[in-house]
Amino acid sequence: MLQDYSLLRIPGPTPVPPSVQSAMAKPMIGHRGEEATELLQRIRPRVKQLFGTEQDIIMIAGSGTAGLETAVVNTVSSNDEVLVIVTGAFGDRFAKICEAYHIKTHRLDVPWGEAVSPEVLEQYLKNHQNIKAVFMTHCETSTGVLNPIASISKTIHENSNALVIVDAVSSLGGVKTEMDEWGVDLLVTGSQKAMMLPPGLTLLGVSDRAWKVIESNEHGCFYFDLQTYRKNVEGDKVPYTPAIPLLLGLDQALNLIEAEGLEEVYRRHEVMKDMTRAAMKALNVPLLTEDEYASPTVTALKPTTFQAEELRKIVKSQFNLSLAGGQQHLSGKVFRIGHMGYCAPADVLQVISLIEIGLIQLGESVTPGAGVKSAQEVLLAQINK
Amino acid sequence: MLQDYSLLRIPGPTPVPPSVQSAMAKPMIGHRGEEATELLQRIRPRVKQLFGTEQDIIMIAGSGTAGLETAVVNTVSSNDEVLVIVTGAFGDRFAKICEAYHIKTHRLDVPWGEAVSPEVLEQYLKNHQNIKAVFMTHCETSTGVLNPIASISKTIHENSNALVIVDAVSSLGGVKTEMDEWGVDLLVTGSQKAMMLPPGLTLLGVSDRAWKVIESNEHGCFYFDLQTYRKNVEGDKVPYTPAIPLLLGLDQALNLIEAEGLEEVYRRHEVMKDMTRAAMKALNVPLLTEDEYASPTVTALKPTTFQAEELRKIVKSQFNLSLAGGQQHLSGKVFRIGHMGYCAPADVLQVISLIEIGLIQLGESVTPGAGVKSAQEVLLAQINK
Repeated sequence: MLQDYSLLRIPGPTPVPPSVQSAMAKPMIGHRGEEATELLQRIRPRVKQLFGTEQDIIMIAGSGTAGLETAVVNTVSSNDEVLVIVTGAFGDRFAKICEAYHIKTHRLDVPWGEAVSPEVLEQYLKNHQNIKAVFMTHCETSTGVLNPIASISKTIHENSNALVIVDAVSSLGGVKTEMDEWGVDLLVTGSQKAMMLPPGLTLLGVSDRAWKVIESNEHGCFYFDLQTYRKNVEGDKVPYTPAIPLLLGLDQALNLIEAEGLEEVYRRHEVMKDMTRAAMKALNVPLLTEDEYASPTVTALKPTTFQAEELRKIVKSQFNLSLAGGQQHLSGKVFRIGHMGYCAPADVLQVISLIEIGLIQLGESVTPGAGVKSAQEVLLAQINK
Repeated sequence: MLQDYSLLRIPGPTPVPPSVQSAMAKPMIGHRGEEATELLQRIRPRVKQLFGTEQDIIMIAGSGTAGLETAVVNTVSSNDEVLVIVTGAFGDRFAKICEAYHIKTHRLDVPWGEAVSPEVLEQYLKNHQNIKAVFMTHCETSTGVLNPIASISKTIHENSNALVIVDAVSSLGGVKTEMDEWGVDLLVTGSQKAMMLPPGLTLLGVSDRAWKVIESNEHGCFYFDLQTYRKNVEGDKVPYTPAIPLLLGLDQALNLIEAEGLEEVYRRHEVMKDMTRAAMKALNVPLLTEDEYASPTVTALKPTTFQAEELRKIVKSQFNLSLAGGQQHLSGKVFRIGHMGYCAPADVLQVISLIEIGLIQLGESVTPGAGVKSAQEVLLAQINK
């Protein structure tokens, strides 16, 4: 097989554009100098657009999970009650973080592959009046579900005083996000998904309402203390050594996003989702998620006539194409295709053509090119619009 | 459109593997130091395999054309008679170089898209007994023809004392080459095609027979003087400052080629050729070249129902996919797909899926997925072998 060749189509980490790679390889700079300040000044106002917020964005060197933990430790204390909406592995992670801090954690478990229903949530909140914060996932990476944050947030605000805290790790940058308009109090993301960067940077947007809660919160923390970061934002400074290459890369990733146009970025992700789903339908590979709640960034498939792991192995060994497997109880039962960030419709066509070959080798009755055809038709319809 | 994204499928320059890019970005070294000597010692024995020769390979900083000129000025003088077999733009270039040096140049012109026939050549040589060297092209990049060098060379040796001088710029590294076995006296290639490097390095293999001619040749030259390079090869030195990044890159490109296995590299190129041709047949896009002389590295198409340039424009503007156009009298009449070097069968499937979309937009009666299907079938048959 051709060496040094790989097709990374998992839902993160995602491929990094060459110009972002180059930007990250610039000579290191000191984090207290003028260059670092200028870099932060360039990034901060622009990254707000992705969040759909007027709030300053806080950036912390750490993975998405560090961001989730930051959201938890700053807003709630061990004697608080919280609700975690669990629609998959990452909702579950929010719950595990809360439990690790001995917070009284209620779980609203939703079958994996489904989105939470605002009606069910409303009833839950009516029955639990002391919830201080509701944690949820925008795009549930493990299932490809995009939870309807706007209506969930509305339901919460109408039925409680709880903070609305959202994990947007695998959606931000690929899905239109309106933190302020939706009434989200704390939105967390990571660099390694639709933002086209390597892992290592988590970004948080915090509402005025959340800041009030954070200021009075008694839970102790140091590295994750949002108030420390907030103080430094004012002078475009950082409290601790930041992940400088990721900030250099973010500056360039924002250039790319702005050159394409944010609306166009979101439209591209919608098209890639529609292409992927049309192809999988044509190939009779069952989608885990209904169209209504399908994420533009990742698609999960739950095959019934072949083993998901066999397909993953065959495309990996033959084409060095990485697809993701299932997580937790879906392990071995689903496979997932990432189509976010530095990924074009042309890449989706390629992935589909390779999955078709894998399916044929597994003995599935697949017409070669049938999935590609359906995806091409989606793309053509979009081009002709 | 997604920024900083491109699909380069022209017949050179070709994409460069990331590990080769990284190798080329290593800190610069002095060309007279031990590191440069060690680098040359690592490269020289291994690059011979690609040529199929026991001769030392001479490397000169310059493009492929510099290599062609080196081949001319070292072997013939202005009072010599030479024959150039012209099967396309690069045969023509050999003739133009000879003419620039006022060498008496005979041209054996073959219709573009066809290979030269050893029978026609034999007759020509019988009628021209004073030919000192015959220049020819292995893969004619402008047409996608692979000339049968083994039989051409045999014909020349049986009918004359002329040197056999071959431009293997767009074949070497992608097509099995047996310089010694075929009786080739001088073989020239460039870095930017199947060798997976950027342009800027030309490589030459010279037979003992050619060295004898070169030693007695009276034509003056300096930078291109092969004897100067030959003297330096012995001590693993270089006469002038070499293109160090390209040598660092070549070292890594050889690692990749060796890890894949040379026979496997050639097989991959054969498969990519067969995939491309099967797809174009399925899509009713006429191939310029018969199957018998089709090159594994580049395929030229000569459409009759649409404008080649329109297709090139449409895939460039929509997908940033670069296909090559025609050269000289084929300008505007053909388009060419490069499938060599750092290119996998998965990339060929992608290119075909995008060409299909372009054809549909041009109003061609193409079934989406039909070309992909044919290419997939070729790939499946090869995998199942």
